Amino acid sequence: MAALTAARPRLAGLRRLARSAAARRADGVFLVEGSTLAAEASAAGLAIRQVYIETARADEEARCLGDRLAAAGATRLEVEAGALAKVGASVTPQPLLAVVERPAAAAGGDAPAGAASFVLVAVSVADPGNAGTLLRCAEAAGAGAVIFAGESADPYGPKAVRASAGSIFRLPPALAQDPITALEGLRGRGLRAVGAAAGRGCPFDRADLSAPLALVVGNESHGLPASLAEQIDDWVHVPLAGLAESLNVGAAAAVLCFEVQRRRRCEAPQAEAAHGR
Amino acid sequence: MAALTAARPRLAGLRRLARSAAARRADGVFLVEGSTLAAEASAAGLAIRQVYIETARADEEARCLGDRLAAAGATRLEVEAGALAKVGASVTPQPLLAVVERPAAAAGGDAPAGAASFVLVAVSVADPGNAGTLLRCAEAAGAGAVIFAGESADPYGPKAVRASAGSIFRLPPALAQDPITALEGLRGRGLRAVGAAAGRGCPFDRADLSAPLALVVGNESHGLPASLAEQIDDWVHVPLAGLAESLNVGAAAAVLCFEVQRRRRCEAPQAEAAHGR
Repeated sequence: MAALTAARPRLAGLRRLARSAAARRADGVFLVEGSTLAAEASAAGLAIRQVYIETARADEEARCLGDRLAAAGATRLEVEAGALAKVGASVTPQPLLAVVERPAAAAGGDAPAGAASFVLVAVSVADPGNAGTLLRCAEAAGAGAVIFAGESADPYGPKAVRASAGSIFRLPPALAQDPITALEGLRGRGLRAVGAAAGRGCPFDRADLSAPLALVVGNESHGLPASLAEQIDDWVHVPLAGLAESLNVGAAAAVLCFEVQRRRRCEAPQAEAAHGR
Repeated sequence: MAALTAARPRLAGLRRLARSAAARRADGVFLVEGSTLAAEASAAGLAIRQVYIETARADEEARCLGDRLAAAGATRLEVEAGALAKVGASVTPQPLLAVVERPAAAAGGDAPAGAASFVLVAVSVADPGNAGTLLRCAEAAGAGAVIFAGESADPYGPKAVRASAGSIFRLPPALAQDPITALEGLRGRGLRAVGAAAGRGCPFDRADLSAPLALVVGNESHGLPASLAEQIDDWVHVPLAGLAESLNVGAAAAVLCFEVQRRRRCEAPQAEAAHGR
């Protein structure tokens, strides 16, 4: 029971991490819920600082994972059944929660996308579920980096982490305050910036989407800000039938990212086997 | 104030309609929140039974719309500020809420997709947000009908209606209890059923997606049930890079629906002008 007592004051800290992007950034961590995702984070090489387990509710899988993570250096903390529900990270709380260190890429800086030749840039995407969906989609389409710029939802928030379905561990997003600076950086090392906007530029299947490429998508309601126009080399859109005025940003990004992937597969059919799962 | 008093007992009925798919089905209606969406429902030709307005909170636009809908036959009911928040249809309640009649197509029946040559079939899609996203995407890609079959989330629920961004008014979904019967019906009138499943069949860009086509997508966690295999003529998948195991159903449906649209545009370039918005 000593472990239980020791863990209690820490739960207030977890609540803070669940709620506040600033707290997550200051501590350089984020929360990962459930055995499946926590195991994926560890498998992706991320360092687990603490693992909280509701011993009374935990199944065999959660207990084994707790042991494994503790052996790898995590602090293992046992808490009462129901304690993790109060952290408020999820509407369906799981009996295991890990505090995971953000990888270095997440710090951003001058070259937030490293040497990637296909980068997805999300500017002021407001919904955390969309932020996670963009990461999941970018990894699956073969993007080498994702940058969240401007007033975007924090991709390291609990809802975004869930929506990313583990992609956030393997394709850690970079955060960039100023989208103009981020695009200048990418263009400075030779990437063409192609902005997605309803009705502008070419239909997706006729646009120049050759590498090196930065695909830029904007806010759910307002799209990309006019202030970014000088940093956009070309525009692309998804043609809309019916009276639909726009697509969900996740759907539009999916169509565009997989169009990039489709062309890469067409141009390099020998790579097909590696992708064709 | 007579109007306020008369409206109060009706609010309990609205709560029931917000919460219960069975209540919505029994009454043949659904709830539409806010002036923008309610105006779109009316513009799409749907009949508005009642329009509730929080007079104290309503802006000019909401008041004008209330007058217009009343002139067109809707019962206009004024309620106190905050009354519609208690209906619980939304986390950001709006001062106008309409009770809208479902169009006849929604009844389903023997030929739920009419004569459409491109139909999206969602089998047991559980998340209401995904249900709405599928409708939005299907309309934008030019699908002629959408069927929700099996244990799907009700596309007429408040969250799905919001996510559809108005597409539900113009492409009213059909509901089919049994997915096997629904697919038998579609195949009976000559549609090929192409099922989406990770790693099965052809990559999307090499699959036969010619019309008449029923594109079938499944549950977020479990995909399509094995019991449906006999009703599937061909399988298609979106090739995944990295370690991603699957795509969000909305993203997968977007890639597939717009691949269908892309081919149609390629085959009929003269139709481009109509689509190229």
